[in-house]
Amino acid sequence: MLRLRRDDNKLEERDDVLSVEEPLEIRLSGRRFTATMRTPGHDDILARGLLFTEGVARDNDDYEEIALSTRCRDDGTQLVNVVDVTLHETPDATSQLWERTLISNSSCGLCGKASVEAMTSRVQPLTSTRECVSSEIIFTLPNLMRAQQELFSQTGGLHAAGIFDANGNCRALYEDIGRHNATDKAIGLGLIEGWLPQREADAPLILLVSGRSSFEIVQKALVARIPIVCSVSAASNLAVELAAANNQTLIGFLREKSFSIYCGEERIEV
Amino acid sequence: MLRLRRDDNKLEERDDVLSVEEPLEIRLSGRRFTATMRTPGHDDILARGLLFTEGVARDNDDYEEIALSTRCRDDGTQLVNVVDVTLHETPDATSQLWERTLISNSSCGLCGKASVEAMTSRVQPLTSTRECVSSEIIFTLPNLMRAQQELFSQTGGLHAAGIFDANGNCRALYEDIGRHNATDKAIGLGLIEGWLPQREADAPLILLVSGRSSFEIVQKALVARIPIVCSVSAASNLAVELAAANNQTLIGFLREKSFSIYCGEERIEV
Repeated sequence: MLRLRRDDNKLEERDDVLSVEEPLEIRLSGRRFTATMRTPGHDDILARGLLFTEGVARDNDDYEEIALSTRCRDDGTQLVNVVDVTLHETPDATSQLWERTLISNSSCGLCGKASVEAMTSRVQPLTSTRECVSSEIIFTLPNLMRAQQELFSQTGGLHAAGIFDANGNCRALYEDIGRHNATDKAIGLGLIEGWLPQREADAPLILLVSGRSSFEIVQKALVARIPIVCSVSAASNLAVELAAANNQTLIGFLREKSFSIYCGEERIEV
Repeated sequence: MLRLRRDDNKLEERDDVLSVEEPLEIRLSGRRFTATMRTPGHDDILARGLLFTEGVARDNDDYEEIALSTRCRDDGTQLVNVVDVTLHETPDATSQLWERTLISNSSCGLCGKASVEAMTSRVQPLTSTRECVSSEIIFTLPNLMRAQQELFSQTGGLHAAGIFDANGNCRALYEDIGRHNATDKAIGLGLIEGWLPQREADAPLILLVSGRSSFEIVQKALVARIPIVCSVSAASNLAVELAAANNQTLIGFLREKSFSIYCGEERIEV
């Protein structure tokens, strides 16, 4: 894409790579479950992660079939635009779907406290492990993530989510135009590879997201049983409330040699 | 909110202001239209802007009544959690709602091209005005916006959207945890004050958003007939396609003394 660049007093044409957003429809047994604007690619992983973090599937074994449909673009390439997911019939799946509908259609209207309570009633709080993660490891994560962000360095416009182990090794890293999608993709890979949802006894995994931590990011990590959530920017009030209510560690403003711990400091060796 | 701050080798407790997100339900004649996580405040303006940019209301005269419901927080303060909007009965409103449902439930699945075409079929392209905006004015906007971002300077975690006239005067500025909400609030104020949707003959208004320009941001500006959209970060492929198809000016990477023009350069005096 050619764009005109005005730089102080110079004017020049540049050939630019644009960050790509395309809509994707995620279906459950042929019926629309949701639609999202996402960066194309890894769409089956996105669907697995999203349906898991939304509480529809409990783990990777719940998925019976994932079918991708594509459309032809003007340039002749194929682009996935529908992922149709079939679950093994489990009584739980139906009741959880029903629960989700109930919460989101409650006639008394929404509020943050109810959102935190509804989520907390659906998951067990995390247990405190004796194993800590050192601050020095936490400090290294943003640079590790940035170094692997290929698309960001090309376009300057993408979010990222990475999952790291307690030694700072990267388990999953995805870029996407949406922070939620990047998180769902990283969690989806963990599901497929079998290391998510995390077992309580293991050394804590760490989710790092670009931007800020919202209620939804903390919720996704909680469902995946990831004990530590870090973000480069701030956390919101509901993110802190939800993490604190579930014994999760929440860290914000992770930059160079500093960060802030909102809650769950016992997992961090400061 | 007390948080623990680890700064290189120091460790201290700080009293922090968190950015607030709380869910809001927007109802249309008592039925849920949408729910959004937003920064509380200006909720009637948000609802007016959102229903307008979604194509449900054509202008401010379509609104018959906006009723706010509140819930009581633990600390005794009241928080708006439902906005119930009643429109004057117009044949258009119903058919537009139907159209929206049709587009979002189309059984052939979604794609970016179809999204651009669907939007383009619903709005007229903007006309080119002879009146230009100087690059020097454009350069001043991010600092003008930042200077008014009270919440950002407290929390470090909020998006903002501002609408400026061709001389760089600020008409509306809102902060919100969501870029879309901030944009809907700014447009909502323009609706109430009667300067949106903009008349084609007037000197072009400018929408500036923090972060990046997505399809949805361009769509909202287009419905409000705002000819120039600027963002501090990148624009996506669909944002550029939609703006270009509708003769809109799209500017990205607006920082200090530089920016990039993706399309519609005839409105900018470079």
